[in-house]
Amino acid sequence: MGEFELIGHYFASAACAQAGDGVALGIGDDCALLDVPAGEQLAVSTDTLVAGVHFPHNPDPCLLAQRALAVSVSDLAAMGATPLGFTLALTLEAANADWLRAFAQGLDQMARACSVSLIGGDTTRGPLSLTLTVFGRTPRGLALTRSGAQVGDLLCVGGCLGDAAGALPLVLGQRSDDSAAAKALLQQYWSPQPQLSLGQALRGNASAALDISDGLLADCGHIAAASRVCLQIELAKVPLSTSLQVFVDAETARNCALSGGDDYVLAFTLPEARLAPLQEQGLSIHVIGKVLAGQGVKLVDAQGQEIIQAKGGYQHFGSSGG
Amino acid sequence: MGEFELIGHYFASAACAQAGDGVALGIGDDCALLDVPAGEQLAVSTDTLVAGVHFPHNPDPCLLAQRALAVSVSDLAAMGATPLGFTLALTLEAANADWLRAFAQGLDQMARACSVSLIGGDTTRGPLSLTLTVFGRTPRGLALTRSGAQVGDLLCVGGCLGDAAGALPLVLGQRSDDSAAAKALLQQYWSPQPQLSLGQALRGNASAALDISDGLLADCGHIAAASRVCLQIELAKVPLSTSLQVFVDAETARNCALSGGDDYVLAFTLPEARLAPLQEQGLSIHVIGKVLAGQGVKLVDAQGQEIIQAKGGYQHFGSSGG
Repeated sequence: MGEFELIGHYFASAACAQAGDGVALGIGDDCALLDVPAGEQLAVSTDTLVAGVHFPHNPDPCLLAQRALAVSVSDLAAMGATPLGFTLALTLEAANADWLRAFAQGLDQMARACSVSLIGGDTTRGPLSLTLTVFGRTPRGLALTRSGAQVGDLLCVGGCLGDAAGALPLVLGQRSDDSAAAKALLQQYWSPQPQLSLGQALRGNASAALDISDGLLADCGHIAAASRVCLQIELAKVPLSTSLQVFVDAETARNCALSGGDDYVLAFTLPEARLAPLQEQGLSIHVIGKVLAGQGVKLVDAQGQEIIQAKGGYQHFGSSGG
Repeated sequence: MGEFELIGHYFASAACAQAGDGVALGIGDDCALLDVPAGEQLAVSTDTLVAGVHFPHNPDPCLLAQRALAVSVSDLAAMGATPLGFTLALTLEAANADWLRAFAQGLDQMARACSVSLIGGDTTRGPLSLTLTVFGRTPRGLALTRSGAQVGDLLCVGGCLGDAAGALPLVLGQRSDDSAAAKALLQQYWSPQPQLSLGQALRGNASAALDISDGLLADCGHIAAASRVCLQIELAKVPLSTSLQVFVDAETARNCALSGGDDYVLAFTLPEARLAPLQEQGLSIHVIGKVLAGQGVKLVDAQGQEIIQAKGGYQHFGSSGG
């Protein structure tokens, strides 16, 4: 048995590979088998992270695994789906036992936090990259898409924005800081928490939703295009964490929140009547604007005056594709 | 919009991305949505192919796409599943329009041949590699696994073995030959045909099944281990194509068929009484041995004498994982 086949066996015995609800057959055969209850649909999303493009070379393997799984599960949150399982395709330069142990530990922690099981995968030799495919289930016809925003709806986000982008100088080693604020930002970068409960609560309530990966402005642009409406954002209402405001100046904080990306916080539109019942459930919902007739994204001040041109969002760490 | 985002849009408009049966929502949102009929299960498999490991550097993009999709869909055939859709995570050094056009064309041809739709994916910059995740459906409880082989069952394969391994010197540029035999072997290497009809016909009939990727001996070893039995193979019954026998000497042909791998032909075990009805359907079934009590794989001559030690199968093109 080759070392890379051994790695497969290693993951197969990981805690997060123990079949959970809905996993009829896990790792070890030609395919895994999932049960999708009658009346539900299966939600599927695939994301690839490449060393030097989506994360620095030589990352902490535990943090890398947490981030990779969280980024993928966040797409399930954006659809209002309940996680079922995921496959991991891991390409590695070499098999290193310490590295793999730490990676599996990070994977396991995030899998437990998201109630999702590893159901299959492939381990190959090559330049470090990961492709995760995640599976969830939603009641048929109730998945949240990008295309249903209606004129008059509120525009909301599920939490503070810009922390991950604020952490980039730390991630890249351009700045060193062990303050509580720096640690909090790094935590948001490496270990974002997919907003699964919020997404599930938005089913049947939100008219459109997605998770913010490209940056608030760019992702609101995606909802606006898919729904053929204009999204107006009131700048002062965009929530910023105390950590971000302590760590960077006000203009940088604003840029991080508008265009930084990698937030993995939900953005969604909501008929106004649905807001109070959701807030009464204790959900984190920040109203930041509204849906207008028209197209694109409009950034305004408290008086409704347009204050800057909406630009395209940041395109992930280190990407030159942008 | 960056060039890699443009590539995503390019694939989204490809013919094979048009939603088919069972695809409720295709490319373009945070997740795709699949409908799994009541009483059925979803089969899922993930495979990664890395340049220089699983295929040569600078491959023909059309052939690469065909092979990548066929290799993945073959796992669905091995479970007896009916294909629904697939996701493609494509990592590329650079975006080249001609390359992408040829790749999409190959993908489209194989997707049509397998009746499977592209439902999502991710395109990133980095060293060339592909991860495909394929989805199929099977009636609940009828998927073919590796673990059900029973003592007394026949051991069968769905076609000739060794052609892809025989083609390797051509693929690697170590040998040049434009004979009909060479072309036939290359065709098997680059464009294997997943045995979907055979797999579906084996549901409720075969006791165990898989697709041969590591080589006949190694993969029979996987069934033997999962089913806790011994698989006995009669060497003279292993089917070889005329092309392979013309292209290489008899011993090389035998080694290619036993240990070469990359066949993507089904191997399965079958109660003897099930054989004739399946053959009457015109299915390609070659009986090559039988299931005995014991463990491992035993290679015998026509008199039942063990003739060579069963060795571990070949581990894919160029792999040093050993």
